[in-house]
Amino acid sequence: MTREPLFDTVGLIGIGLIGSSLARVIRRKGLARRIVACARRDSTLETVRTLGLADAVTKDHAEAARGADLVVISTPIGTNGMIARTIAPVLTPGQIVTDVGSVKQAVIRDVAPAIPEGVHFVPGHPLAGTEESGPESGFDTLFEGRWCVLTPPPGTDPEAVERVSELWRQAGSMIDVIDADHHDWVMALTSHLPTLIAFNIVGTVADMENHTRQEVIKYSASGFRDFTRIAAQDPVMWRDVYLNNREAVLEMLQRFNEDLSRLQRAIRWGEGEELEDLFRRSRDIRRGIIDAGQA
Amino acid sequence: MTREPLFDTVGLIGIGLIGSSLARVIRRKGLARRIVACARRDSTLETVRTLGLADAVTKDHAEAARGADLVVISTPIGTNGMIARTIAPVLTPGQIVTDVGSVKQAVIRDVAPAIPEGVHFVPGHPLAGTEESGPESGFDTLFEGRWCVLTPPPGTDPEAVERVSELWRQAGSMIDVIDADHHDWVMALTSHLPTLIAFNIVGTVADMENHTRQEVIKYSASGFRDFTRIAAQDPVMWRDVYLNNREAVLEMLQRFNEDLSRLQRAIRWGEGEELEDLFRRSRDIRRGIIDAGQA
Repeated sequence: MTREPLFDTVGLIGIGLIGSSLARVIRRKGLARRIVACARRDSTLETVRTLGLADAVTKDHAEAARGADLVVISTPIGTNGMIARTIAPVLTPGQIVTDVGSVKQAVIRDVAPAIPEGVHFVPGHPLAGTEESGPESGFDTLFEGRWCVLTPPPGTDPEAVERVSELWRQAGSMIDVIDADHHDWVMALTSHLPTLIAFNIVGTVADMENHTRQEVIKYSASGFRDFTRIAAQDPVMWRDVYLNNREAVLEMLQRFNEDLSRLQRAIRWGEGEELEDLFRRSRDIRRGIIDAGQA
Repeated sequence: MTREPLFDTVGLIGIGLIGSSLARVIRRKGLARRIVACARRDSTLETVRTLGLADAVTKDHAEAARGADLVVISTPIGTNGMIARTIAPVLTPGQIVTDVGSVKQAVIRDVAPAIPEGVHFVPGHPLAGTEESGPESGFDTLFEGRWCVLTPPPGTDPEAVERVSELWRQAGSMIDVIDADHHDWVMALTSHLPTLIAFNIVGTVADMENHTRQEVIKYSASGFRDFTRIAAQDPVMWRDVYLNNREAVLEMLQRFNEDLSRLQRAIRWGEGEELEDLFRRSRDIRRGIIDAGQA
């Protein structure tokens, strides 16, 4: 392609599954002239070097942000406020800062106040992932066919939103722009609650005596296995999700618990029709997902 | 192979995902001279004919069992007692009857009393499946590398147990022989509880207003999707599981609820360390499953 790259320099703060997949997309499609990657650990930076994911690596957040026309924060969301305050002194008008966090109100609350006048903050959330983490786990088709949700606060520069949108479109994603509070409410239902339930059920097994645990592992193909895949995701990332989307998650847990009590009662009283009816409705939702191309 | 087939005639009562996969294995490996398939619906029998899964098809349970040296019952377990009573008059000493049900105490309770003297009943449970159902969904590698659990009551003929074991070994499975009550307890934890939770969470979404439901479907790649796959399984089969393994499932639900209350409290009070600690332990269980070759 002889087209101008979308960005001159992209600074990637955090280069795990998401950050490194984005780096691979930027490389493959020539979306930036230069990538600077920032990570805390020497081993991570070493992997980034070995895989050739960046033109420069650094442990210094500000160094990764300096002069980058796009800064992407891809770290557990509990760190985002600190990172914003660290990079703020080097940010200059016209730069764009975005993120990939699974909770948006808390990230806006923590990051926006630190962003200097004239710098554009475009909060984002690509709905893609695997059970893996770390820079070696990324791949350049991770975002293909998936949604990327942007939640720019009112007054955000439309051109900055468009440039971030174009980055994700180039990665193969569809873009939605919605309110941060609505994002957090829907994600509590579609992502945070299911993952919490998976962690909980695997935890229930983890608490069993060793002999039982070994049997469950052995027989896990009968259903349990699928939950362990979900519950193998990064513990720190998910801790921060629950600490930062508390109200919405607790609301969904309440609904889940009410429904589970009803199911529990139907089992206790042998109400076969009620069970069958619920199980049938589940199939319709599955068909909807297949029809929506998200299966 | 010039070896004698393991069985002369196999009668398959129920020819859905499991029954039809077994038929494919028997065909491919020449494990029987003749397969008779029995189903209730014309459309199912038509599919069996089209796919060439059997040498003869019938709607009559007794017809499928008559003269078969092995009868395999692969129907929702609520029907097994009725099927046993229907085929009992045509059974003769030396025939073997087995099943594939996910609950074993209830099946033994319902089937064993109907089995005539000299006929061998070997209850079984292959731990394999997909979200699909029906004869078109089967495939001949479904059982490869998976466990098949047999729960013969005390006094069952060892040679009959060995012949059923050999059938599953030929299908690529590993065999475990354990007590029916222990089977039901472990499966409540490893299979029945996880699937119930998946049905419940998909049900929570199904109850949402249409607009929200559409959004959840759209954004389902963020976690919810994996639950819908589990919850797309056959409703009647699962209804019968919960009606027939009530005590063990309710016990596991109790444990699950206690653990979920603790998690809920940790979220409400912002106890990050407790959350992270639980999430870390989940990863160890996942590693155990990978190490056990069941991932």
